[in-house]
Amino acid sequence: MLQDLHGFFYPRTVALIGATDKRDKPGTAILENLAHFHGAVYPVNPKHETLLGHRCYPSIMDVPEDIDLAIIALPAALVEQEIDAIHRKSIKRVILISSGFAEAGAKGMEMQKRIADKTEHYGIRVIGPNALGVYNTDNGLDSFFVSRERVSRPVPGRLSIISQSGAITVILMEALSRDGIGLAKAVNYGNRLDVDEADALDYLADDPQTGAVAMYMESVGNGRKFLKAAKAFCEKKPLVIWKAGKHEMGAAAVASHTATLAGTYGLYQAAFRQAGAIEAFGFDHMIDAAKAVALMEYPCIRGRLLIVTNGGGMAVAASDQAQLEGFTMPGMPEAVRARLQQAFPSFFVTSNPIDVTGSGRNEDYYTALTEALPHYDAAVVIVLMGSTTVTEEAAELIARACHEAKKPVTCCILQGLGYTREAMSALLKLGIPVYPSPERAVRALAALRKATCRSAGSE
Amino acid sequence: MLQDLHGFFYPRTVALIGATDKRDKPGTAILENLAHFHGAVYPVNPKHETLLGHRCYPSIMDVPEDIDLAIIALPAALVEQEIDAIHRKSIKRVILISSGFAEAGAKGMEMQKRIADKTEHYGIRVIGPNALGVYNTDNGLDSFFVSRERVSRPVPGRLSIISQSGAITVILMEALSRDGIGLAKAVNYGNRLDVDEADALDYLADDPQTGAVAMYMESVGNGRKFLKAAKAFCEKKPLVIWKAGKHEMGAAAVASHTATLAGTYGLYQAAFRQAGAIEAFGFDHMIDAAKAVALMEYPCIRGRLLIVTNGGGMAVAASDQAQLEGFTMPGMPEAVRARLQQAFPSFFVTSNPIDVTGSGRNEDYYTALTEALPHYDAAVVIVLMGSTTVTEEAAELIARACHEAKKPVTCCILQGLGYTREAMSALLKLGIPVYPSPERAVRALAALRKATCRSAGSE
Repeated sequence: MLQDLHGFFYPRTVALIGATDKRDKPGTAILENLAHFHGAVYPVNPKHETLLGHRCYPSIMDVPEDIDLAIIALPAALVEQEIDAIHRKSIKRVILISSGFAEAGAKGMEMQKRIADKTEHYGIRVIGPNALGVYNTDNGLDSFFVSRERVSRPVPGRLSIISQSGAITVILMEALSRDGIGLAKAVNYGNRLDVDEADALDYLADDPQTGAVAMYMESVGNGRKFLKAAKAFCEKKPLVIWKAGKHEMGAAAVASHTATLAGTYGLYQAAFRQAGAIEAFGFDHMIDAAKAVALMEYPCIRGRLLIVTNGGGMAVAASDQAQLEGFTMPGMPEAVRARLQQAFPSFFVTSNPIDVTGSGRNEDYYTALTEALPHYDAAVVIVLMGSTTVTEEAAELIARACHEAKKPVTCCILQGLGYTREAMSALLKLGIPVYPSPERAVRALAALRKATCRSAGSE
Repeated sequence: MLQDLHGFFYPRTVALIGATDKRDKPGTAILENLAHFHGAVYPVNPKHETLLGHRCYPSIMDVPEDIDLAIIALPAALVEQEIDAIHRKSIKRVILISSGFAEAGAKGMEMQKRIADKTEHYGIRVIGPNALGVYNTDNGLDSFFVSRERVSRPVPGRLSIISQSGAITVILMEALSRDGIGLAKAVNYGNRLDVDEADALDYLADDPQTGAVAMYMESVGNGRKFLKAAKAFCEKKPLVIWKAGKHEMGAAAVASHTATLAGTYGLYQAAFRQAGAIEAFGFDHMIDAAKAVALMEYPCIRGRLLIVTNGGGMAVAASDQAQLEGFTMPGMPEAVRARLQQAFPSFFVTSNPIDVTGSGRNEDYYTALTEALPHYDAAVVIVLMGSTTVTEEAAELIARACHEAKKPVTCCILQGLGYTREAMSALLKLGIPVYPSPERAVRALAALRKATCRSAGSE
């Protein structure tokens, strides 16, 4: 099983059936994206002799090499006969991009069923149909039919994505790119003719590049198989899951989207809890939690939270959220408070939250964290960049204090204009996840805590 | 009362006591910002003869003109005696920027009390202390001690801000600037020595530039007075309120921030409901709801929601949220469905949500909305810009369909890189609020509905 999936992510040779150069065609975008693949690419299309500098073959049978992975980007009606050719060519792995199957009504459902029977009979593993397929930063493999100008690819990193929806896959990748969060692998399995979310979890649990997974699902292929895979995965790495189609109206939308039954939300929640996964309750929450578990080096075993701010209102908002997330906020130990009072002007607030006010400088953040953080389990640091006394260099001092105390820290910087974005990038580069609101910074830290509790519990 | 506040927003002459040119001093930033004021500015500081091209006066008594508004940016200890001078000069309005009063402990509290007694005795109205004061896009008045390089000022527009916290005021303004949402007036009243949130609401209810208010509060000055003002305001205009310090930990943070009692959250919620205000549950929600009520031209009386998307997963997420917000999603009327099926390729989904898939073009959005929107009360339109078949011009077609049907529409475009931000700006310029996640687009539409229900109910 694991070997099967390895071939999807690490083929040596790839054939693209339905390669073309027509504008807006999937076969064009995929061929362009395969230019980044560190392996051999063989376009197949009887209408072309060459494509993008590759020799193009009339049929898959004409390709002179053994093919590890075939990507099919043909109209749905042409797929079934292509499967026979693929079998004759002894290809064992297919990414089926084409839509127009189960999601398109009864006729498509029948076609999908016939292909499923055929590939099972031939022993061919399939990702898709109605899917983007696979993206692997480790070897540049990219079967996504979205151009890099339209959807920029994240830098290599520790987070992997498993998604039932192509759209969600793409916007997650775009959000990661925007925030500079690194990606390991992404797989969008679409109609789940064969390879499902559990297979992907099993594979990524052992993938050395993957440090955490963000998963989007509308339905589950096989409940028992999924629970087993999720449990095993969470023993090793954090898993953030966003289940959509939770409520009646969402479930109705699922039916027309991935042609599956969304199922009873309560059962999913029970399974996520049992597995030890972190449930995300929407898109922002998903990306926020994934960022935290992918970036943070330090565990957050207990919940004694420190808040440091240069704007009191933001600390109030963070404190409200901290309570909702189950953190506690013990007061400042007297000895620490005395040292802070000595170091700071009298109008700084030296309780918890620490408020260095609009006069707080970069080094005041460092002082606050260095003195106080050892007495807490984690911190949320809020930096209002509108103050003239803080600069982008605050990032380095905040990260240094966090690393010296070996405690997890999330930051809140409003992602506004120009240099606020630079300050955000600087922190992210130093491994500190940054969020655009105090509530989201706290919520992300809470996700990290759930991830840590799980791995702590399993030791 | 109203006349009193009018003088804070529309003085003809302003004196800045504590004007200076030292880096990082409030008196420097304020004087720079007053350069944008369409009125006369008189800096006061015995140590300077001129400042920023203005003649500078040794004391307020030396200023040769009548002064409508004095802005005091002196250390707390010097303020009390200055009030006497202000009285001798017959000035009736003071913005007290200085911090170090009630928020800084018992001694500051006493000073604040003495100043309150004195100004009440003299009949001087005060905004502050520990406050940014007033920003008015109508005449350029700007008492905020944050430079325009650090916090850019929003363009003139319909939304006004009332905030107890300076930090929240500043990040709201920055978020509005970032998103291109126009601001009318902003007031941060800080320690609320005199002018409070109710006074501000009363004034802005009759301010012709203000179309809606976003309010941040940690505590209320006078409960009965506030409820009366909020009720009267909501009869005329939408009011979005974010109450922080809701829970025990947040309330503790309030005590050290604005030196007030946060009070029982349940009582606040009851008051908001009674007044007809829209409660925002955090920073993102506040800015999202404010954007919707400030921008949208059309009411959302009933809750029959249409969703149009080019990515199925996003529609599922939006549908989940729609249910939580109390919308309904009636199916597509058969006649409309037939017309959509005729206009669209067979693989587009013509139920509700309408899914034009990754192949959907700009004009398909227009077709979908033109055919279906007349049969619904509002729409959420999701545009994944990663598709090569949609461009920034989709904005114009979506806005046109919305205006033709005279129905409110919110959009979801992930605020990623480059041209996704351009598409977002294009929509905002056409009056369509745009949000970076499907959940937030739905939630903002729900805020609009609450605002509409209220004004519909009051007719």
